Amino acid sequence: MKKIRVAIVGYGNVGQAAMQAVLSSSDMELVGIVRRNVQHIPHELKNCNVVGSIDALSDVDVALLCVPTREVPRQAAALLEKGISTVDSYDIHTGICSLRNELMSIACEHGAVSIVSAGWDPGSDSVVRCLMNALTPSGITYTDFGPGRSMGHTVAVRAIEGVEDALSLTIPLGTGLHRRMVYVQLKQGYDFEAVREQILQDDYFRHDETHVQQVGSVAELNNVAHSVNIVRNGVSGTTHNQQLAFRMSINNPALTGQVMVSCARAAVRLQPGAYTMIEIPPVCLLPGDVEQNIRALV
Amino acid sequence: MKKIRVAIVGYGNVGQAAMQAVLSSSDMELVGIVRRNVQHIPHELKNCNVVGSIDALSDVDVALLCVPTREVPRQAAALLEKGISTVDSYDIHTGICSLRNELMSIACEHGAVSIVSAGWDPGSDSVVRCLMNALTPSGITYTDFGPGRSMGHTVAVRAIEGVEDALSLTIPLGTGLHRRMVYVQLKQGYDFEAVREQILQDDYFRHDETHVQQVGSVAELNNVAHSVNIVRNGVSGTTHNQQLAFRMSINNPALTGQVMVSCARAAVRLQPGAYTMIEIPPVCLLPGDVEQNIRALV
Repeated sequence: MKKIRVAIVGYGNVGQAAMQAVLSSSDMELVGIVRRNVQHIPHELKNCNVVGSIDALSDVDVALLCVPTREVPRQAAALLEKGISTVDSYDIHTGICSLRNELMSIACEHGAVSIVSAGWDPGSDSVVRCLMNALTPSGITYTDFGPGRSMGHTVAVRAIEGVEDALSLTIPLGTGLHRRMVYVQLKQGYDFEAVREQILQDDYFRHDETHVQQVGSVAELNNVAHSVNIVRNGVSGTTHNQQLAFRMSINNPALTGQVMVSCARAAVRLQPGAYTMIEIPPVCLLPGDVEQNIRALV
Repeated sequence: MKKIRVAIVGYGNVGQAAMQAVLSSSDMELVGIVRRNVQHIPHELKNCNVVGSIDALSDVDVALLCVPTREVPRQAAALLEKGISTVDSYDIHTGICSLRNELMSIACEHGAVSIVSAGWDPGSDSVVRCLMNALTPSGITYTDFGPGRSMGHTVAVRAIEGVEDALSLTIPLGTGLHRRMVYVQLKQGYDFEAVREQILQDDYFRHDETHVQQVGSVAELNNVAHSVNIVRNGVSGTTHNQQLAFRMSINNPALTGQVMVSCARAAVRLQPGAYTMIEIPPVCLLPGDVEQNIRALV
């Protein structure tokens, strides 16, 4: 059987995890890695095709866009125009539907598939929320994140003058509310209290319970673990108090990379177009044929 | 917008719950209920179209087969041959794939859709197991049921001579193992110890830890609550110890009826053919258009 030829664009945390997931998938082959820096190649990529442009790779079926989220729209469009299917983990919730619609017409025109927001949230959590709504059409769903690092909040703290490095941890308080634990490593000569005040007044933090601590080294706190708990109490028909919950405790980039790789499989199976994960038959994410998976899982 | 015209075949626990779910769905209308007994019509069906055959109903889009599981294959085939789409909650795990394949050709030939095994297990639990495998391709999934009544085990006990009524409760011990708590109401003149021995030697029970108790009235123990806990510890790429869990505590027939009704929506949206739930895009289960659901849930 012909293997799915996958390229990885970007080699940060998620790109590295995606590479491991591709190499662990017997139905895929890694065509190459596209990155800006092709001079200094990390040791583990010595036997790998590392290139500066996707044009240097041949017969790519699917490109995994492991790039910063804001670069996704432009890069996905450019790849789809070459007829290369894409998978991304675009995570700005308010922009997902319009990104999907923009990429839809490009993908259809070029006979390619684009799977957008294929991470765990948005992504597999979205599938869980969708399924929970199908089981209980009325009710409230709470998505409680953490403990785990919030990249958005961390970046907001790092942007403050006097901050050498920072980490913002998200702690779940239940019912969709979160505490922020902020760890700050200061540059020489800056006042902690002034920095702390700026953090507390920042839009990212001022609506949440926030605790700021000064530490000597943020690097020593590094941990890519994350968790989520999706809870719904809802109504099936006219029957109340149907209780549903989905919980994960995971290595964040490893899960994101794996979801993207599983979606690469769907990308070669679906009709041309752009899809979010709730639009994909779940069995399309798995290796093997449909009947084999029905026998094993249904 | 034209409403989905739904008929319910069978009016037991699940049929009653399905009726409540249809009546609670603003995009559907209940065309009628098909049941053997059309002489004695329950009070709550006084304003409802109760008929002895589906042929007495007009323009049915989807029929929900709320009949005993062994009757599903024959009744689904007969309805599909009339061009009526079907949803069933066929629950004999080993027969699902062949039932789907049998109904596939009939459905395709008559331009209809058949959704098989649309309950919670098989059904929505199957979707969860499928998704968990996509997130962590290697690892072990345990599906732990209960506490809740097992119909199969209950029926096995009721078949024993001297048993007036019985209830077999499934208790989860974790790692897919279950304890059986059996409550027996005896007919006059039968010996409890003899009945107990027969239960313990029955194929349904002899591999599991089983406790048998005599009670005066099984009816007083009646409770349609059930629970499930699906647990997976798996590997994403090369990263181990990814922990996933899905838990529900629910009214069993209410959930089954609701899942069937949500699948009726998918039945009018999918191409002709037969599908298990892992073959259906989850968003097809929800009312409203795709973009609206992406904005709310992804």
